[in-house]
Amino acid sequence: MTPSQKINIGLLGYGTVGSNVYGLLESQAGEIEKATGASISISRIMVRDPSLPRAGAPSELFTGNFDDILSDAGISIIVELIGGVEPAFDYVTAALEQGKAVITANKQLLSRQGFYLFRLAQDKKTQIRFEASVAGAIPVIKVLRESMVAAGLKSIYGIVNGTTNFILTEMSRTGVRYEDALARAQEWGYAEADPGEDISGKDAAAKMAILASIAFHTSVGLEDVTCAGIENVSRRDIAYARELGLTVKLLGVARLYDDRINVRVYPALIKQDHPLASVSGAYNAVFLKGAAIDEIMLSGPGAGGTETASAVVSDIISAVARRESPGFLEYPVAYRNLDFFPDEEVVSTFYLRLEVEDEPGVLAAIASAFGKHGVSIESVIQKGRGARAELVMVFHPVKESRFAAAIKEAGGLEVVKSTPRPIRVEGSHDDGQ
Amino acid sequence: MTPSQKINIGLLGYGTVGSNVYGLLESQAGEIEKATGASISISRIMVRDPSLPRAGAPSELFTGNFDDILSDAGISIIVELIGGVEPAFDYVTAALEQGKAVITANKQLLSRQGFYLFRLAQDKKTQIRFEASVAGAIPVIKVLRESMVAAGLKSIYGIVNGTTNFILTEMSRTGVRYEDALARAQEWGYAEADPGEDISGKDAAAKMAILASIAFHTSVGLEDVTCAGIENVSRRDIAYARELGLTVKLLGVARLYDDRINVRVYPALIKQDHPLASVSGAYNAVFLKGAAIDEIMLSGPGAGGTETASAVVSDIISAVARRESPGFLEYPVAYRNLDFFPDEEVVSTFYLRLEVEDEPGVLAAIASAFGKHGVSIESVIQKGRGARAELVMVFHPVKESRFAAAIKEAGGLEVVKSTPRPIRVEGSHDDGQ
Repeated sequence: MTPSQKINIGLLGYGTVGSNVYGLLESQAGEIEKATGASISISRIMVRDPSLPRAGAPSELFTGNFDDILSDAGISIIVELIGGVEPAFDYVTAALEQGKAVITANKQLLSRQGFYLFRLAQDKKTQIRFEASVAGAIPVIKVLRESMVAAGLKSIYGIVNGTTNFILTEMSRTGVRYEDALARAQEWGYAEADPGEDISGKDAAAKMAILASIAFHTSVGLEDVTCAGIENVSRRDIAYARELGLTVKLLGVARLYDDRINVRVYPALIKQDHPLASVSGAYNAVFLKGAAIDEIMLSGPGAGGTETASAVVSDIISAVARRESPGFLEYPVAYRNLDFFPDEEVVSTFYLRLEVEDEPGVLAAIASAFGKHGVSIESVIQKGRGARAELVMVFHPVKESRFAAAIKEAGGLEVVKSTPRPIRVEGSHDDGQ
Repeated sequence: MTPSQKINIGLLGYGTVGSNVYGLLESQAGEIEKATGASISISRIMVRDPSLPRAGAPSELFTGNFDDILSDAGISIIVELIGGVEPAFDYVTAALEQGKAVITANKQLLSRQGFYLFRLAQDKKTQIRFEASVAGAIPVIKVLRESMVAAGLKSIYGIVNGTTNFILTEMSRTGVRYEDALARAQEWGYAEADPGEDISGKDAAAKMAILASIAFHTSVGLEDVTCAGIENVSRRDIAYARELGLTVKLLGVARLYDDRINVRVYPALIKQDHPLASVSGAYNAVFLKGAAIDEIMLSGPGAGGTETASAVVSDIISAVARRESPGFLEYPVAYRNLDFFPDEEVVSTFYLRLEVEDEPGVLAAIASAFGKHGVSIESVIQKGRGARAELVMVFHPVKESRFAAAIKEAGGLEVVKSTPRPIRVEGSHDDGQ
């Protein structure tokens, strides 16, 4: 073996993940050197206020000035952990322009500027790696980029947001309301004080944009992902779904329809014996389906300081192991420009709970509204009587545009007393994908 | 991008996997060229009798002579799919000696000669890759080698043999006897005519040897893996286990105990809500546990022509993507020599079914035999009466040497009428690992 080479890293941000990255590089230095032939260390850390005392790294490493890192020719890799689009975009761009490799965990940045940054890295013959941007410690980016090239991938779906999965698991497990489950998630550190990005599905949408880009080799931005959150999932729906053998999960779904793609995030009901149903708490799971591989699942912790740090460090190690020749990363991530398959044309199975007048002829009126649009009911159960009467319905697979028209018509009936909020049922039919 | 380079491959063996590799390289040529910048094709195929007609590849590619491939300077990668130790070992050695990269799916070869071959590849500055040797399409080798370097892995366990998982799933699902489930597996193509390697746990042991070597960076050979098969799993055990909320799986388990390792294969009972319990049929699943990652699971089809071929092709693509610099593969897979942790010192939880005389004082005698060796009973249920009386017992975690002594003593009691065949219970305590 050639004598050990020294690799210096500039770290941007020193929060939970950053300090764990520092710690892992120190504690695993021996293993890392044996795997890469290099001695890797963080030689500079940029933080907003370098004068504050910090645990872990010696104080002389800290700086408040990005140029101290950018202009340091001894630093060949920059790890960006500050998050958000600005100023991260400027820093990452400047680093790539100089030919420095970039490791980032920044899903906001990549879901908006990924296509540009991937191209820039290729032009500058350097690397941008982003394992930690999706699904924490689960190595889904490496698997997609390096192990699935010939798998003929047709769809990727799964649970990519731990906060909402924790909340839905709590609601299912204890029967509490959404608001109480959210409060518990905040108390236990699984949800931030402002949980908007998670709850609304936007965090999951950013991750699905990244996964779909990599899997289908096309540019998918955050704006291309239709997204619904979990705010309207009621505990009544959870209880009724359970009686039907179903459980609620916030799913990200990216599917190829011939040469068009559709990428969405929505709460969905899945069968209780489906492997996704046993993904509980803040765990994530991603399914990959393809012509040559049938179905592969990767699951594990979707967040956490050491878990995310482990993904960042695995990227650092991969970057160093391929410092002479970046291998896969020499060639474009996104080399084609697929059109999008419209949501309205997707064929889905729906569950629907409707509060209705408890009087003769109600079901006939509702069934006729759906029938008029060619939407056929698979099962219907009446729950409660009198003022609290509800119909719990599951429909046969139907084109979403038709279902939307039927819902509009049914929702307008005088006997219907609630706003219809259908939930998709996944895994019951395969839609040919 | 530089103009496309031409890469020629020599293929050894043209069975189900070989012909699928040929087909995948053809059908996915466009994707592969975009990911690697190379045009990859199989230019020669060695088979025993090249005069036989074969589908897929043109007849002029076939040869019966390995030297036609070895001496062809245009061939830089050899894919070995003939299986078995000899002559595969000679072919692989000769290829590596000449600096050709080797891709193999051969678990028998690697579990016996892996350490030697890994070293040889390093000495010759070439690559040996073997994703398809373990768990079919699931990219567990790449994940272990490239994504888990800093994860602080402590244990790897899972289901790595599809045939036995199919048989156990059938027994659980339908209540049939072992012999009938095996016959069904053979009829449906999930078990070979001679299923000895699968049934005895030896196939799983070979795979665990490979996984443990890679994960813990030490030499683990087939002979280092203690192994028990599923021949003695009875449908009575399966039925009683179900009443206890448990299900039977053939598990491979590799664990680090400080600086020693223990690698074994045995049938085990796991809780029905454990993710492994929902791995059914011929699927495989591997759990990775480590300090920095908590627990990651990979699951998917463990075998199958296109699935295994997909793993082989992903290795070809990785080898080509890193033809200039093999990255990770420049550095030793196994760089230390860990001692083995003795089976007898492992702490395990046991389930035991005993046929006994149905008379007063039987339980007292048996409990006393266990008590004498410090083995404590967690629960005991009597099943049946008279001639068919059975005790179904679960014990508190105990050092295996103690349990073995207690079993010997209990088995020698006159009131015990069957040979005690304990089954380990996994996932109920974590043994600090």
